[in-house]
Amino acid sequence: MFEVRELDLAGRIGRIKTNHGIVETPAFLPVIHPANQSIPARDIRAMGFTTVMTNSYITFRRHGGDAIEKGIHSIIEFDGPIMTDSGGYQILEYGKVSIGPLEIARYQEDIGSDFSNVLDTPTGVGGSRRQSEESVKKTLESCRITMEGLGQDRKSLWIGPVQGGKYLDLVTSSARHLSSMPFDMFALGSPTEIMERYDFTLLAQMIISAKKALPVDKPLHLFGLGHPLPLAMAVALGCDTFDSASYILYARAGRYITETGTRRIQDLEYLPCVCRVCSEISPRQLNELEADQRENKIAIHNLYMLKREIEATKQALREGRLWEYIGSKARAHPNLWAAFEELAKNSHSFEVFTPSFKSRGLMLSSYPDHLRPEIMRTHERVVSYLSGRQRRPLLILPEGRVRPFVYGKAYEMASSAFEIPFIIGYISVPVGFVPGEISDVYPYSQIVITPALQSDPRVMDQFIKVLTIQLRSLAPSMTFLVRDGQLDDSVYDLLKTLLEPKFMISGDEYILESTLERIKKILDD
Amino acid sequence: MFEVRELDLAGRIGRIKTNHGIVETPAFLPVIHPANQSIPARDIRAMGFTTVMTNSYITFRRHGGDAIEKGIHSIIEFDGPIMTDSGGYQILEYGKVSIGPLEIARYQEDIGSDFSNVLDTPTGVGGSRRQSEESVKKTLESCRITMEGLGQDRKSLWIGPVQGGKYLDLVTSSARHLSSMPFDMFALGSPTEIMERYDFTLLAQMIISAKKALPVDKPLHLFGLGHPLPLAMAVALGCDTFDSASYILYARAGRYITETGTRRIQDLEYLPCVCRVCSEISPRQLNELEADQRENKIAIHNLYMLKREIEATKQALREGRLWEYIGSKARAHPNLWAAFEELAKNSHSFEVFTPSFKSRGLMLSSYPDHLRPEIMRTHERVVSYLSGRQRRPLLILPEGRVRPFVYGKAYEMASSAFEIPFIIGYISVPVGFVPGEISDVYPYSQIVITPALQSDPRVMDQFIKVLTIQLRSLAPSMTFLVRDGQLDDSVYDLLKTLLEPKFMISGDEYILESTLERIKKILDD
Repeated sequence: MFEVRELDLAGRIGRIKTNHGIVETPAFLPVIHPANQSIPARDIRAMGFTTVMTNSYITFRRHGGDAIEKGIHSIIEFDGPIMTDSGGYQILEYGKVSIGPLEIARYQEDIGSDFSNVLDTPTGVGGSRRQSEESVKKTLESCRITMEGLGQDRKSLWIGPVQGGKYLDLVTSSARHLSSMPFDMFALGSPTEIMERYDFTLLAQMIISAKKALPVDKPLHLFGLGHPLPLAMAVALGCDTFDSASYILYARAGRYITETGTRRIQDLEYLPCVCRVCSEISPRQLNELEADQRENKIAIHNLYMLKREIEATKQALREGRLWEYIGSKARAHPNLWAAFEELAKNSHSFEVFTPSFKSRGLMLSSYPDHLRPEIMRTHERVVSYLSGRQRRPLLILPEGRVRPFVYGKAYEMASSAFEIPFIIGYISVPVGFVPGEISDVYPYSQIVITPALQSDPRVMDQFIKVLTIQLRSLAPSMTFLVRDGQLDDSVYDLLKTLLEPKFMISGDEYILESTLERIKKILDD
Repeated sequence: MFEVRELDLAGRIGRIKTNHGIVETPAFLPVIHPANQSIPARDIRAMGFTTVMTNSYITFRRHGGDAIEKGIHSIIEFDGPIMTDSGGYQILEYGKVSIGPLEIARYQEDIGSDFSNVLDTPTGVGGSRRQSEESVKKTLESCRITMEGLGQDRKSLWIGPVQGGKYLDLVTSSARHLSSMPFDMFALGSPTEIMERYDFTLLAQMIISAKKALPVDKPLHLFGLGHPLPLAMAVALGCDTFDSASYILYARAGRYITETGTRRIQDLEYLPCVCRVCSEISPRQLNELEADQRENKIAIHNLYMLKREIEATKQALREGRLWEYIGSKARAHPNLWAAFEELAKNSHSFEVFTPSFKSRGLMLSSYPDHLRPEIMRTHERVVSYLSGRQRRPLLILPEGRVRPFVYGKAYEMASSAFEIPFIIGYISVPVGFVPGEISDVYPYSQIVITPALQSDPRVMDQFIKVLTIQLRSLAPSMTFLVRDGQLDDSVYDLLKTLLEPKFMISGDEYILESTLERIKKILDD
């Protein structure tokens, strides 16, 4: 039911099959009010949103049995896939709702929801540990009642709600419990408050904690993310669908979404957007419209911004450039940047998903780009490559300009010069030692890096550690080193200590032929 | 003739008065071919481009005297301000043109150009030092002939072309010579080749070198910048207008502009744009159009991307957030990031332009944000504040949570506790020592910084240097220090060495009242 087509970091482009057609993910689902919707669903569809979210509890209160007769698709006049929320948000807001979990579950089935949600008890961010435990427990109980009550014969796709809030161990255990139930999909609640506080690091930690325990082959919904700022990061961490009413709520408050945050419309002298609305109106004209006209236009613009963000994220993901994309967005706010560094620290958990080959250059601009999974992966790969090749003589050459190194003249000459098997390679920041034979493997020849990052002390620290592990595991019988001016003196000091090279000569002066002759002589002695 | 309305870094929002109306800068001028234009000028105007560029030399060759009779505005059917290029680009491409500088200058006046360019000899990037010197000399000679020939009675605004290419001293001396001539505006040539190489650091250095020698009250045009990637940075460095035919040249090659670079249209599965074109077509449909239809649609999209970039840059500039904006864009490519670091190194040269008050938070995400002019400026400000207050007792308190510090209870109590004048303040990374009395001055209370940046070794290095200078210049008669857990141990070590504090107590344990009592006692003794 969920087919994954492309992967990058923990993000994916996928397809979910529903009763009303395919949902391509990542997808943003605009929230449509079942009784009081200001932007017609057909307009939202025309903007390219194939799927929407509406609230089954409000539908139940406003339309009751009528909705069962007509179906939710006819009530909100939308013929694509519809996800329904359950009233859990109303529990968070008002403390309780006047319906039981099984009743609202059956109602969602009966009105023809394509994706249905269990009546959960959201964990508020302000809650104590004990309250949060309670909300997880109540939610799991609600899930049990719902799934057992519905039985095998479900028409809708059912979503298991992960709770736990800021208590990350609760998030993980909540996710673990849900994983054993027959859900088609999962959802993480309720980041709205966290989003309002711009606590993107906590948001990242919550997603990482949930993903750890959830099955990778099922989609994950994130409730209430309605801003372009953290959306791509949430995708990179493994969220597949999103919903929010922010586009209309912001519009009502005269707030205009930009890529770097919302602005009060009266604070804008320029409209940094070229959507249908913004290319036909000036900020002043927009500001002077009647309230409902203004709300309508800002809401449409806001939806376009979300649409743009989803499309840009998908294209970046498809190009294997999701890291670059979220790194660029992260610079818009220190809190988002902090979350990006948090994601970088968890880079190892993305290694399995990140493609092992990408057709584009690997862009390393600044800290923490050296922690990308594509780079981290090289460290161990070299150790495992070297593990069968220990105690051979080692020749370290300058990296040179030819890429890959293995196609260069130096490698060719050196590798054919000796009768006994040599390890021949070069050293490069941040990857460490690169054996010539695997230098054509991605990403060695595709790395584009700033000199400033190569000399960043934190990058050097990691590089020195990695290089030490690699060379220790190689334990060459003897070492010959052509000293390359590209590397820091500290690297040569390390090499001297680790390897006691037979000789080190400067890369500027050396002539490969005579170097090889000298090595042969030493080998003969 | 050039009125500056807003400043940020070396960027400005300004207005240039021309014979055909006001040009608000920064402005992008789409190039319109005077005989073979595929997108009608009225469509370009309708998209919001108020000013365009066309080529007077091609006009001369194709239309000759006709254009004098009709006027260039009627030839290209555009009634807004028009800038004409002179044929210099044709010299760069073909080696020479069949017209003299004064002849083409008079022709530009006669056809009614609003902005006219001298027939220059562009410095190719590949040229030797000698060739580059020659091009600067020839261009200056051409300028002299033109301006002397035209005399006082000029109808058009005249632009002085800065040459010199990669030889930065030539750029500066070229700019210096031009500054003494009666130009209304200046232009920097010819970055097209540099742009193609993505050598954004060289581009930044060239602009910085030119700006150094040019009068600040005149606009600077940058030839041939037609990509959203480096545009905001060029604005931040002080360029006011831009022109390029890239939108159509890219379109002809099937290349679609995105914010992070161009893409071949067949490589796009998603369109990361919501402009009129992109919101009505899928990438596949776009790709399958007839060649001229496709070119037209991509060209319109490309123009919208440039339009969006200009508007976003202007809004960021107006908000005093140009640094944040270019930092975010810079992450899109390591070469642009390297240029951003180059700009940061030259931060001191922007101090004079950057507003001394901004209503928004100062966002410090990662290296090199601590080099922002708003931060650099604080360093000297404190030294100058302290210069009249030397040899007083100094009390360093924890920063606390109240912002500004001067409004906090701790400052209030401490400042009223003593009869003799005390210096009371706190220490914070990256700004150094902050005297309480000026803690309500921008930006002390508006700084939003990531913990990771505060502990970045390069930031700490600068901070330690600054703090040393500040405290040495203060030379307090004695020091009392409440040790705040927020700061690194190395800071306290430094304070011990520099100040020999009478006592240091831990911020966790201290009670302000008793601390003040203890200080009084020491003072009494």
